[in-house]
Amino acid sequence: MTRVAAVQLAPVVGDLDGNVDRAAAAVERSVAEGAQIVVLPELATSGYVFETPEEARSLALRPDDEVFGRFAAAAGDATVVAGFAELGEDRVSNSAALLDASGVRAVYRKVHLWDQEKRFFAPGDARPPVVETPFGRVGVMICFDLEFPEWTRIAALAGADLLAVPTNWPLVPVSHGERPPEVQIAIATARMNRMAIVCADRVGVERGVDWTGGTSVVDADGALVARVGTGPGTAWADIDLLASRDKRQAELVDLIGDRRPDLYGPLVD
Amino acid sequence: MTRVAAVQLAPVVGDLDGNVDRAAAAVERSVAEGAQIVVLPELATSGYVFETPEEARSLALRPDDEVFGRFAAAAGDATVVAGFAELGEDRVSNSAALLDASGVRAVYRKVHLWDQEKRFFAPGDARPPVVETPFGRVGVMICFDLEFPEWTRIAALAGADLLAVPTNWPLVPVSHGERPPEVQIAIATARMNRMAIVCADRVGVERGVDWTGGTSVVDADGALVARVGTGPGTAWADIDLLASRDKRQAELVDLIGDRRPDLYGPLVD
Repeated sequence: MTRVAAVQLAPVVGDLDGNVDRAAAAVERSVAEGAQIVVLPELATSGYVFETPEEARSLALRPDDEVFGRFAAAAGDATVVAGFAELGEDRVSNSAALLDASGVRAVYRKVHLWDQEKRFFAPGDARPPVVETPFGRVGVMICFDLEFPEWTRIAALAGADLLAVPTNWPLVPVSHGERPPEVQIAIATARMNRMAIVCADRVGVERGVDWTGGTSVVDADGALVARVGTGPGTAWADIDLLASRDKRQAELVDLIGDRRPDLYGPLVD
Repeated sequence: MTRVAAVQLAPVVGDLDGNVDRAAAAVERSVAEGAQIVVLPELATSGYVFETPEEARSLALRPDDEVFGRFAAAAGDATVVAGFAELGEDRVSNSAALLDASGVRAVYRKVHLWDQEKRFFAPGDARPPVVETPFGRVGVMICFDLEFPEWTRIAALAGADLLAVPTNWPLVPVSHGERPPEVQIAIATARMNRMAIVCADRVGVERGVDWTGGTSVVDADGALVARVGTGPGTAWADIDLLASRDKRQAELVDLIGDRRPDLYGPLVD
Protein backbone atom coordinates (compact mmCIF):
# COMPACT_ATOMS: atom_id res chain seq x y z
CA MET A 1 0.00 0.00 0.00
CA THR A 2 1.14 3.53 -0.74
CA ARG A 3 0.35 6.34 1.66
CA VAL A 4 -1.08 9.29 -0.22
CA ALA A 5 -1.57 12.83 1.07
CA ALA A 6 -3.73 15.28 -0.87
CA VAL A 7 -3.11 18.69 0.63
CA GLN A 8 -5.84 21.32 0.56
CA LEU A 9 -4.27 24.77 0.85
CA ALA A 10 -5.48 28.38 0.69
CA PRO A 11 -2.96 30.14 -1.53
CA VAL A 12 -3.05 33.94 -1.62
CA VAL A 13 -2.82 35.52 -5.05
CA GLY A 14 0.35 37.58 -5.32
CA ASP A 15 1.97 36.25 -2.14
CA LEU A 16 4.59 34.08 -3.83
CA ASP A 17 6.89 33.85 -0.80
CA GLY A 18 4.10 33.09 1.64
CA ASN A 19 2.55 30.50 -0.70
CA VAL A 20 5.90 28.77 -1.18
CA ASP A 21 6.49 28.74 2.59
CA ARG A 22 3.09 27.18 3.23
CA ALA A 23 3.48 24.65 0.41
CA ALA A 24 6.98 23.58 1.52
CA ALA A 25 5.78 23.28 5.11
CA ALA A 26 2.83 21.15 3.97
CA VAL A 27 5.16 18.82 2.08
CA GLU A 28 7.51 18.55 5.05
CA ARG A 29 4.65 17.86 7.45
CA SER A 30 3.05 15.29 5.14
CA VAL A 31 6.31 13.43 4.67
CA ALA A 32 6.95 13.48 8.42
CA GLU A 33 3.54 11.86 8.86
CA GLY A 34 4.41 9.09 6.43
CA ALA A 35 3.23 10.34 3.05
CA GLN A 36 4.84 8.65 0.05
CA ILE A 37 2.95 10.64 -2.57
CA VAL A 38 2.02 14.25 -1.82
CA VAL A 39 -0.24 16.26 -4.13
CA LEU A 40 -0.67 20.05 -3.79
CA PRO A 41 -3.26 22.24 -5.55
CA GLU A 42 -3.08 23.91 -8.94
CA LEU A 43 -1.16 27.21 -8.97
CA ALA A 44 -0.22 26.61 -5.34
CA THR A 45 2.65 29.10 -5.52
CA SER A 46 0.92 31.97 -7.32
CA GLY A 47 -2.77 31.94 -6.49
CA TYR A 48 -5.38 31.84 -9.23
CA VAL A 49 -7.52 34.93 -9.81
CA PHE A 50 -5.18 37.16 -11.80
CA GLU A 51 -6.21 40.57 -13.04
CA THR A 52 -3.78 40.84 -15.93
CA PRO A 53 -1.42 38.61 -17.91
CA GLU A 54 1.42 40.69 -16.46
CA GLU A 55 0.37 39.75 -12.93
CA ALA A 56 0.39 36.05 -13.83
CA ARG A 57 3.80 36.44 -15.44
CA SER A 58 5.20 38.25 -12.40
CA LEU A 59 4.27 35.25 -10.23
CA ALA A 60 5.57 32.61 -12.63
CA LEU A 61 8.60 30.41 -11.92
CA ARG A 62 11.07 28.63 -14.15
CA PRO A 63 11.32 24.88 -13.42
CA ASP A 64 14.93 25.46 -12.30
CA ASP A 65 13.83 28.03 -9.73
CA GLU A 66 15.19 27.46 -6.23
CA VAL A 67 11.59 27.05 -5.04
CA PHE A 68 11.68 23.52 -6.44
CA GLY A 69 14.93 22.92 -4.60
CA ARG A 70 13.07 23.74 -1.39
CA PHE A 71 10.26 21.34 -2.29
CA ALA A 72 12.83 18.65 -3.20
CA ALA A 73 14.58 19.15 0.12
CA ALA A 74 11.24 18.70 1.89
CA ALA A 75 10.30 15.61 -0.14
CA GLY A 76 12.45 13.06 1.66
CA ASP A 77 11.62 9.69 0.11
CA ALA A 78 8.29 10.91 -1.25
CA THR A 79 7.14 11.94 -4.71
CA VAL A 80 5.52 15.38 -4.80
CA VAL A 81 3.20 16.90 -7.42
CA ALA A 82 2.54 20.64 -7.18
CA GLY A 83 0.88 23.20 -9.40
CA PHE A 84 2.64 26.46 -10.28
CA ALA A 85 2.58 29.26 -12.81
CA GLU A 86 5.48 28.50 -15.15
CA LEU A 87 7.63 31.09 -16.86
CA GLY A 88 8.77 29.90 -20.27
CA GLU A 89 10.82 31.53 -23.00
CA ASP A 90 7.85 33.08 -24.71
CA ARG A 91 4.88 31.91 -22.70
CA VAL A 92 3.38 31.52 -19.26
CA SER A 93 1.83 28.13 -18.52
CA ASN A 94 -0.47 26.67 -15.91
CA SER A 95 1.85 23.83 -14.97
CA ALA A 96 2.47 21.06 -12.48
CA ALA A 97 5.84 19.66 -11.45
CA LEU A 98 6.44 16.10 -10.37
CA LEU A 99 9.52 16.04 -8.17
CA ASP A 100 11.39 14.09 -5.55
CA ALA A 101 14.58 14.53 -3.56
CA SER A 102 16.53 14.43 -6.84
CA GLY A 103 14.66 17.49 -8.13
CA VAL A 104 12.03 18.10 -10.79
CA ARG A 105 11.41 14.94 -12.81
CA ALA A 106 8.60 16.12 -15.09
CA VAL A 107 6.65 19.26 -15.87
CA TYR A 108 3.15 19.13 -17.31
CA ARG A 109 1.50 22.15 -18.92
CA LYS A 110 -2.29 22.27 -18.68
CA VAL A 111 -3.79 21.52 -22.06
CA HIS A 112 -7.45 22.30 -21.38
CA LEU A 113 -7.51 25.82 -19.97
CA TRP A 114 -10.67 26.81 -18.12
CA ASP A 115 -12.50 30.05 -18.81
CA GLN A 116 -10.45 33.17 -17.94
CA GLU A 117 -7.24 31.12 -17.76
CA LYS A 118 -7.22 31.55 -21.52
CA ARG A 119 -6.40 35.22 -20.95
CA PHE A 120 -3.39 34.48 -18.78
CA PHE A 121 -1.82 31.24 -19.98
CA ALA A 122 -0.72 29.49 -23.16
CA PRO A 123 -2.19 25.98 -23.40
CA GLY A 124 0.17 23.03 -23.27
CA ASP A 125 0.56 20.75 -26.23
CA ALA A 126 2.08 17.60 -24.75
CA ARG A 127 0.48 14.56 -23.21
CA PRO A 128 0.31 14.01 -19.47
CA PRO A 129 3.58 12.58 -18.18
CA VAL A 130 3.46 9.15 -16.57
CA VAL A 131 6.48 8.80 -14.31
CA GLU A 132 7.88 5.64 -12.79
CA THR A 133 8.29 6.19 -9.04
CA PRO A 134 9.27 3.77 -6.24
CA PHE A 135 5.52 3.42 -5.52
CA GLY A 136 4.13 2.97 -9.01
CA ARG A 137 3.51 5.00 -12.15
CA VAL A 138 2.16 8.46 -11.45
CA GLY A 139 0.39 10.46 -14.15
CA VAL A 140 -0.11 14.21 -13.91
CA MET A 141 -2.77 16.53 -15.26
CA ILE A 142 -4.48 19.68 -13.97
CA CYS A 143 -8.05 20.49 -12.95
CA PHE A 144 -10.25 20.94 -16.06
CA ASP A 145 -8.11 18.37 -17.92
CA LEU A 146 -9.85 15.74 -15.76
CA GLU A 147 -13.16 16.58 -17.44
CA PHE A 148 -11.94 15.42 -20.85
CA PRO A 149 -12.35 11.66 -20.84
CA GLU A 150 -10.03 11.31 -23.83
CA TRP A 151 -7.26 12.85 -21.74
CA THR A 152 -7.73 10.68 -18.68
CA ARG A 153 -7.99 7.63 -20.90
CA ILE A 154 -4.67 8.54 -22.49
CA ALA A 155 -3.07 8.60 -19.03
CA ALA A 156 -4.54 5.18 -18.27
CA LEU A 157 -3.39 3.79 -21.61
CA ALA A 158 0.09 5.15 -20.87
CA GLY A 159 0.06 3.02 -17.75
CA ALA A 160 -0.69 5.47 -14.94
CA ASP A 161 -1.49 3.62 -11.72
CA LEU A 162 -2.40 6.86 -10.01
CA LEU A 163 -3.38 10.16 -11.56
CA ALA A 164 -2.29 13.20 -9.53
CA VAL A 165 -4.51 16.19 -10.27
CA PRO A 166 -3.72 19.58 -8.76
CA THR A 167 -6.98 21.55 -8.98
CA ASN A 168 -8.65 24.87 -8.21
CA TRP A 169 -12.38 24.16 -8.42
CA PRO A 170 -14.56 27.27 -8.25
CA LEU A 171 -17.60 26.54 -6.09
CA VAL A 172 -20.71 25.72 -8.12
CA PRO A 173 -24.21 25.13 -6.73
CA VAL A 174 -25.22 21.51 -6.23
CA SER A 175 -28.36 19.94 -4.78
CA HIS A 176 -28.38 19.26 -1.06
CA GLY A 177 -26.15 16.35 -0.16
CA GLU A 178 -24.69 16.08 -3.64
CA ARG A 179 -20.97 15.90 -4.26
CA PRO A 180 -19.26 18.54 -6.36
CA PRO A 181 -19.55 17.59 -10.04
CA GLU A 182 -15.77 17.39 -10.36
CA VAL A 183 -15.67 14.75 -7.62
CA GLN A 184 -18.36 12.77 -9.44
CA ILE A 185 -16.19 12.93 -12.54
CA ALA A 186 -13.13 11.75 -10.60
CA ILE A 187 -15.09 8.79 -9.21
CA ALA A 188 -16.42 7.75 -12.61
CA THR A 189 -13.06 8.25 -14.31
CA ALA A 190 -11.30 6.08 -11.74
CA ARG A 191 -13.95 3.41 -12.17
CA MET A 192 -13.92 3.44 -15.99
CA ASN A 193 -10.13 3.18 -16.15
CA ARG A 194 -9.33 1.27 -12.96
CA MET A 195 -6.89 4.05 -12.10
CA ALA A 196 -6.59 5.74 -8.71
CA ILE A 197 -7.13 9.52 -8.79
CA VAL A 198 -5.92 12.09 -6.27
CA CYS A 199 -7.33 15.63 -6.57
CA ALA A 200 -5.79 18.32 -4.35
CA ASP A 201 -8.12 21.33 -4.35
CA ARG A 202 -7.84 24.76 -2.75
CA VAL A 203 -10.01 26.73 -0.32
CA GLY A 204 -10.35 30.38 0.61
CA VAL A 205 -12.13 33.25 -1.13
CA GLU A 206 -9.91 35.01 -3.66
CA ARG A 207 -11.01 38.26 -5.33
CA GLY A 208 -14.62 37.23 -5.03
CA VAL A 209 -14.17 33.62 -6.14
CA ASP A 210 -15.12 30.97 -3.59
CA TRP A 211 -13.49 27.56 -3.89
CA THR A 212 -14.94 24.10 -3.50
CA GLY A 213 -12.45 22.48 -1.15
CA GLY A 214 -13.16 19.25 -2.99
CA THR A 215 -9.86 17.49 -2.26
CA SER A 216 -10.52 13.77 -2.83
CA VAL A 217 -8.75 10.45 -3.08
CA VAL A 218 -10.46 7.80 -5.22
CA ASP A 219 -9.16 4.25 -5.52
CA ALA A 220 -9.03 2.11 -8.65
CA ASP A 221 -12.47 0.66 -7.88
CA GLY A 222 -13.93 4.17 -8.01
CA ALA A 223 -14.44 4.32 -4.24
CA LEU A 224 -14.06 7.77 -2.70
CA VAL A 225 -11.73 6.85 0.17
CA ALA A 226 -10.73 10.26 1.57
CA ARG A 227 -12.04 13.83 1.64
CA VAL A 228 -11.15 16.95 3.64
CA GLY A 229 -13.41 19.47 5.30
CA THR A 230 -14.08 22.96 3.98
CA GLY A 231 -10.88 24.47 5.38
CA PRO A 232 -7.21 23.73 4.83
CA GLY A 233 -6.31 20.13 5.63
CA THR A 234 -5.05 16.88 4.20
CA ALA A 235 -6.88 13.87 2.82
CA TRP A 236 -4.98 10.71 3.73
CA ALA A 237 -5.39 7.33 2.14
CA ASP A 238 -3.51 4.07 1.79
CA ILE A 239 -3.88 3.01 -1.82
CA ASP A 240 -2.96 -0.25 -3.52
CA LEU A 241 -1.43 1.21 -6.66
CA LEU A 242 -0.77 -2.16 -8.24
CA ALA A 243 -4.52 -2.83 -8.25
CA SER A 244 -4.67 -0.42 -11.17
CA ARG A 245 -2.70 -2.84 -13.32
CA ASP A 246 -5.40 -5.49 -13.32
CA LYS A 247 -8.13 -4.13 -15.57
CA ARG A 248 -10.38 -7.18 -15.22
CA GLN A 249 -13.76 -6.58 -13.66
CA ALA A 250 -15.19 -10.05 -14.25
CA GLU A 251 -14.09 -13.28 -15.92
CA LEU A 252 -14.33 -11.94 -19.49
CA VAL A 253 -14.17 -8.20 -18.77
CA ASP A 254 -11.05 -6.10 -19.31
CA LEU A 255 -11.77 -2.38 -19.14
CA ILE A 256 -8.87 -1.55 -21.44
CA GLY A 257 -8.77 -4.72 -23.53
CA ASP A 258 -12.48 -4.42 -24.30
CA ARG A 259 -11.97 -1.05 -26.00
CA ARG A 260 -12.67 -0.90 -29.72
CA PRO A 261 -9.86 1.20 -31.21
CA ASP A 262 -11.05 0.04 -34.65
CA LEU A 263 -14.08 2.26 -34.05
CA TYR A 264 -12.52 5.29 -32.36
CA GLY A 265 -8.82 5.23 -32.96
CA PRO A 266 -6.10 4.20 -30.57
CA LEU A 267 -5.88 7.61 -28.77
CA VAL A 268 -2.20 6.84 -28.22
CA ASP A 269 0.37 5.60 -30.73
CA MET B 1 -39.67 20.17 -21.86
CA THR B 2 -39.85 16.53 -22.90
CA ARG B 3 -41.51 13.97 -20.68
CA VAL B 4 -39.27 10.95 -20.32
CA ALA B 5 -40.23 7.54 -18.89
CA ALA B 6 -37.50 5.05 -18.02
CA VAL B 7 -39.24 1.75 -17.39
CA GLN B 8 -37.73 -0.77 -14.98
CA LEU B 9 -39.03 -4.24 -15.79
CA ALA B 10 -38.37 -7.79 -14.60
CA PRO B 11 -38.04 -9.85 -17.78
CA VAL B 12 -38.09 -13.62 -17.43
CA VAL B 13 -35.48 -15.49 -19.44
CA GLY B 14 -37.15 -17.71 -22.01
CA ASP B 15 -40.63 -16.19 -21.65
CA LEU B 16 -40.64 -14.30 -24.94
CA ASP B 17 -44.42 -13.92 -25.13
CA GLY B 18 -44.80 -12.81 -21.53
CA ASN B 19 -41.88 -10.37 -21.80
CA VAL B 20 -43.33 -8.84 -24.96
CA ASP B 21 -46.75 -8.53 -23.32
CA ARG B 22 -45.28 -6.77 -20.29
CA ALA B 23 -43.07 -4.50 -22.42
CA ALA B 24 -45.92 -3.50 -24.75
CA ALA B 25 -48.18 -2.84 -21.76
CA ALA B 26 -45.47 -0.68 -20.17
CA VAL B 27 -45.13 1.38 -23.35
CA GLU B 28 -48.90 1.79 -23.62
CA ARG B 29 -49.23 2.79 -19.97
CA SER B 30 -46.30 5.23 -20.17
CA VAL B 31 -47.69 6.91 -23.28
CA ALA B 32 -51.14 7.15 -21.66
CA GLU B 33 -49.48 8.94 -18.77
CA GLY B 34 -47.84 11.45 -21.08
CA ALA B 35 -44.46 9.99 -21.92
CA GLN B 36 -42.85 11.34 -25.09
CA ILE B 37 -39.72 9.23 -24.85
CA VAL B 38 -39.94 5.73 -23.35
CA VAL B 39 -36.86 3.64 -22.63
CA LEU B 40 -37.05 -0.07 -21.78
CA PRO B 41 -34.23 -2.31 -20.46
CA GLU B 42 -31.61 -4.25 -22.39
CA LEU B 43 -32.83 -7.63 -23.71
CA ALA B 44 -36.32 -6.75 -22.49
CA THR B 45 -37.92 -9.38 -24.72
CA SER B 46 -35.59 -12.31 -24.08
CA GLY B 47 -34.16 -12.05 -20.58
CA TYR B 48 -30.41 -12.06 -20.01
CA VAL B 49 -28.85 -15.09 -18.32
CA PHE B 50 -28.66 -17.56 -21.19
CA GLU B 51 -27.22 -21.04 -20.76
CA THR B 52 -26.24 -21.65 -24.36
CA PRO B 53 -25.85 -19.70 -27.61
CA GLU B 54 -28.76 -21.78 -28.93
CA GLU B 55 -31.01 -20.50 -26.17
CA ALA B 56 -30.11 -16.88 -26.99
CA ARG B 57 -30.76 -17.55 -30.68
CA SER B 58 -34.12 -19.16 -29.95
CA LEU B 59 -35.25 -15.96 -28.21
CA ALA B 60 -33.89 -13.56 -30.86
CA LEU B 61 -36.12 -11.47 -33.12
CA ARG B 62 -35.63 -10.00 -36.55
CA PRO B 63 -36.20 -6.23 -36.65
CA ASP B 64 -39.21 -6.85 -38.92
CA ASP B 65 -40.81 -9.15 -36.37
CA GLU B 66 -44.42 -8.35 -35.54
CA VAL B 67 -43.33 -7.69 -31.95
CA PHE B 68 -42.07 -4.30 -33.10
CA GLY B 69 -45.40 -3.69 -34.79
CA ARG B 70 -47.01 -4.15 -31.38
CA PHE B 71 -44.57 -1.73 -29.80
CA ALA B 72 -45.18 0.76 -32.63
CA ALA B 73 -48.92 0.49 -32.15
CA ALA B 74 -48.43 1.22 -28.45
CA ALA B 75 -46.11 4.16 -29.09
CA GLY B 76 -48.72 6.77 -30.05
CA ASP B 77 -46.81 10.04 -30.52
CA ALA B 78 -43.85 8.85 -28.45
CA THR B 79 -40.40 7.57 -29.38
CA VAL B 80 -39.54 4.22 -27.81
CA VAL B 81 -36.15 2.59 -27.26
CA ALA B 82 -36.12 -1.08 -26.29
CA GLY B 83 -33.45 -3.73 -25.97
CA PHE B 84 -33.89 -7.14 -27.62
CA ALA B 85 -31.88 -10.14 -28.79
CA GLU B 86 -31.59 -9.70 -32.54
CA LEU B 87 -31.53 -12.52 -35.06
CA GLY B 88 -29.34 -11.65 -38.04
CA GLU B 89 -28.35 -13.59 -41.10
CA ASP B 90 -25.32 -15.16 -39.52
CA ARG B 91 -25.24 -13.72 -36.03
CA VAL B 92 -27.17 -12.96 -32.88
CA SER B 93 -26.73 -9.45 -31.49
CA ASN B 94 -27.51 -7.69 -28.24
CA SER B 95 -29.47 -4.87 -29.87
CA ALA B 96 -31.76 -1.94 -29.19
CA ALA B 97 -34.45 -0.60 -31.50
CA LEU B 98 -35.55 3.01 -31.67
CA LEU B 99 -39.09 3.10 -32.95
CA ASP B 100 -42.23 5.20 -33.16
CA ALA B 101 -45.69 4.76 -34.64
CA SER B 102 -44.12 4.52 -38.08
CA GLY B 103 -42.12 1.45 -37.02
CA VAL B 104 -38.46 0.72 -36.33
CA ARG B 105 -36.32 3.74 -37.22
CA ALA B 106 -32.90 2.50 -36.09
CA VAL B 107 -31.27 -0.61 -34.69
CA TYR B 108 -28.09 -0.44 -32.63
CA ARG B 109 -25.95 -3.51 -31.94
CA LYS B 110 -24.00 -3.46 -28.69
CA VAL B 111 -20.33 -2.91 -29.41
CA HIS B 112 -18.84 -3.49 -25.96
CA LEU B 113 -20.12 -6.87 -24.83
CA TRP B 114 -19.88 -7.56 -21.13
CA ASP B 115 -18.42 -10.78 -19.73
CA GLN B 116 -20.44 -13.89 -20.67
CA GLU B 117 -22.33 -11.97 -23.36
CA LYS B 118 -19.28 -12.71 -25.47
CA ARG B 119 -20.37 -16.34 -25.51
CA PHE B 120 -23.82 -15.56 -26.83
CA PHE B 121 -23.60 -12.50 -29.06
CA ALA B 122 -21.52 -11.07 -31.88
CA PRO B 123 -20.34 -7.54 -31.12
CA GLY B 124 -21.67 -4.68 -33.23
CA ASP B 125 -19.35 -2.70 -35.42
CA ALA B 126 -21.31 0.49 -36.09
CA ARG B 127 -21.53 3.72 -34.14
CA PRO B 128 -24.48 4.58 -31.94
CA PRO B 129 -27.33 5.98 -34.04
CA VAL B 130 -28.44 9.53 -33.30
CA VAL B 131 -32.00 9.93 -34.53
CA GLU B 132 -33.90 13.15 -35.09
CA THR B 133 -37.23 12.89 -33.26
CA PRO B 134 -39.99 15.48 -32.67
CA PHE B 135 -38.42 16.07 -29.23
CA GLY B 136 -34.76 16.29 -30.11
CA ARG B 137 -31.93 14.03 -31.19
CA VAL B 138 -31.88 10.69 -29.40
CA GLY B 139 -28.73 8.57 -29.31
CA VAL B 140 -28.81 4.87 -28.44
CA MET B 141 -26.30 2.56 -26.83
CA ILE B 142 -26.51 -0.38 -24.45
CA CYS B 143 -25.34 -0.95 -20.86
CA PHE B 144 -21.55 -1.56 -20.78
CA ASP B 145 -21.14 0.75 -23.81
CA LEU B 146 -21.81 3.61 -21.38
CA GLU B 147 -18.57 2.79 -19.54
CA PHE B 148 -16.42 3.60 -22.57
CA PRO B 149 -16.03 7.37 -22.54
CA GLU B 150 -14.87 7.36 -26.16
CA TRP B 151 -18.23 5.89 -27.12
CA THR B 152 -20.40 8.32 -25.20
CA ARG B 153 -18.29 11.19 -26.49
CA ILE B 154 -18.92 10.00 -30.03
CA ALA B 155 -22.67 10.15 -29.40
CA ALA B 156 -22.31 13.69 -28.03
CA LEU B 157 -20.16 14.74 -30.98
CA ALA B 158 -22.80 13.29 -33.31
CA GLY B 159 -25.27 15.68 -31.69
CA ALA B 160 -27.24 13.50 -29.29
CA ASP B 161 -29.35 15.64 -26.95
CA LEU B 162 -30.38 12.60 -24.98
CA LEU B 163 -28.70 9.23 -24.77
CA ALA B 164 -31.12 6.32 -24.26
CA VAL B 165 -29.36 3.39 -22.61
CA PRO B 166 -31.21 0.11 -22.12
CA THR B 167 -29.26 -1.73 -19.41
CA ASN B 168 -29.08 -4.89 -17.33
CA TRP B 169 -26.77 -4.04 -14.44
CA PRO B 170 -25.79 -7.04 -12.30
CA LEU B 171 -25.82 -5.99 -8.66
CA VAL B 172 -22.33 -5.22 -7.30
CA PRO B 173 -21.44 -4.36 -3.72
CA VAL B 174 -21.12 -0.66 -2.89
CA SER B 175 -20.45 1.17 0.35
CA HIS B 176 -23.46 2.11 2.44
CA GLY B 177 -25.36 4.97 0.86
CA GLU B 178 -23.34 4.93 -2.35
CA ARG B 179 -24.96 4.89 -5.73
CA PRO B 180 -24.29 2.01 -8.11
CA PRO B 181 -21.07 2.68 -10.04
CA GLU B 182 -22.94 2.67 -13.34
CA VAL B 183 -25.14 5.52 -12.08
CA GLN B 184 -22.00 7.43 -11.04
CA ILE B 185 -20.71 6.96 -14.57
CA ALA B 186 -23.99 8.17 -16.10
CA ILE B 187 -23.89 11.31 -13.94
CA ALA B 188 -20.30 12.12 -14.86
CA THR B 189 -20.83 11.34 -18.54
CA ALA B 190 -23.85 13.64 -18.73
CA ARG B 191 -21.87 16.37 -17.01
CA MET B 192 -18.76 16.03 -19.19
CA ASN B 193 -20.76 16.10 -22.41
CA ARG B 194 -23.77 18.23 -21.44
CA MET B 195 -25.98 15.42 -22.71
CA ALA B 196 -29.01 14.01 -20.89
CA ILE B 197 -28.81 10.27 -20.19
CA VAL B 198 -31.67 7.85 -19.54
CA CYS B 199 -30.78 4.39 -18.26
CA ALA B 200 -33.59 1.82 -18.05
CA ASP B 201 -32.41 -1.07 -15.90
CA ARG B 202 -34.04 -4.36 -14.91
CA VAL B 203 -34.88 -6.03 -11.60
CA GLY B 204 -35.58 -9.57 -10.47
CA VAL B 205 -33.29 -12.50 -9.77
CA GLU B 206 -32.55 -14.58 -12.88
CA ARG B 207 -30.71 -17.90 -12.65
CA GLY B 208 -28.85 -16.68 -9.59
CA VAL B 209 -28.02 -13.20 -10.90
CA ASP B 210 -29.46 -10.31 -8.91
CA TRP B 211 -30.00 -7.01 -10.68
CA THR B 212 -29.35 -3.47 -9.57
CA GLY B 213 -32.62 -1.77 -10.42
CA GLY B 214 -30.56 1.33 -11.15
CA THR B 215 -32.96 3.01 -13.59
CA SER B 216 -31.96 6.67 -13.69
CA VAL B 217 -32.61 9.89 -15.55
CA VAL B 218 -29.76 12.42 -15.58
CA ASP B 219 -30.11 15.88 -17.12
CA ALA B 220 -27.51 17.74 -19.17
CA ASP B 221 -26.13 19.40 -16.02
CA GLY B 222 -25.34 15.98 -14.61
CA ALA B 223 -28.15 16.14 -12.05
CA LEU B 224 -29.79 12.81 -11.21
CA VAL B 225 -33.42 13.86 -11.57
CA ALA B 226 -35.28 10.54 -11.32
CA ARG B 227 -34.76 7.05 -9.91
CA VAL B 228 -37.05 4.08 -9.23
CA GLY B 229 -37.23 1.80 -6.23
CA THR B 230 -35.91 -1.74 -6.15
CA GLY B 231 -38.96 -3.26 -7.84
CA PRO B 232 -40.56 -2.73 -11.24
CA GLY B 233 -41.57 0.86 -11.83
CA THR B 234 -40.98 3.93 -13.94
CA ALA B 235 -38.65 6.89 -13.47
CA TRP B 236 -40.36 10.04 -14.74
CA ALA B 237 -38.66 13.30 -15.61
CA ASP B 238 -39.30 16.42 -17.64
CA ILE B 239 -36.08 17.18 -19.46
CA ASP B 240 -35.08 20.24 -21.45
CA LEU B 241 -33.44 18.46 -24.35
CA LEU B 242 -32.36 21.66 -26.07
CA ALA B 243 -30.20 22.50 -23.04
CA SER B 244 -27.83 19.84 -24.37
CA ARG B 245 -27.06 21.99 -27.40
CA ASP B 246 -25.41 24.76 -25.41
CA LYS B 247 -22.07 23.34 -24.34
CA ARG B 248 -20.94 26.50 -22.55
CA GLN B 249 -20.32 26.18 -18.85
CA ALA B 250 -18.86 29.66 -18.29
CA GLU B 251 -17.98 32.68 -20.42
CA LEU B 252 -14.98 31.07 -22.11
CA VAL B 253 -15.82 27.39 -21.53
CA ASP B 254 -17.25 25.11 -24.22
CA LEU B 255 -17.14 21.46 -23.22
CA ILE B 256 -16.94 20.32 -26.83
CA GLY B 257 -15.15 23.29 -28.36
CA ASP B 258 -12.42 23.09 -25.73
CA ARG B 259 -11.47 19.59 -26.83
CA ARG B 260 -8.00 19.16 -28.36
CA PRO B 261 -8.48 16.82 -31.32
CA ASP B 262 -4.94 17.74 -32.38
CA LEU B 263 -3.80 15.72 -29.37
CA TYR B 264 -6.20 12.76 -29.43
CA GLY B 265 -7.82 12.63 -32.83
CA PRO B 266 -11.30 13.72 -33.79
CA LEU B 267 -13.03 10.47 -32.69
CA VAL B 268 -15.57 11.14 -35.45
CA ASP B 269 -14.92 12.03 -39.08
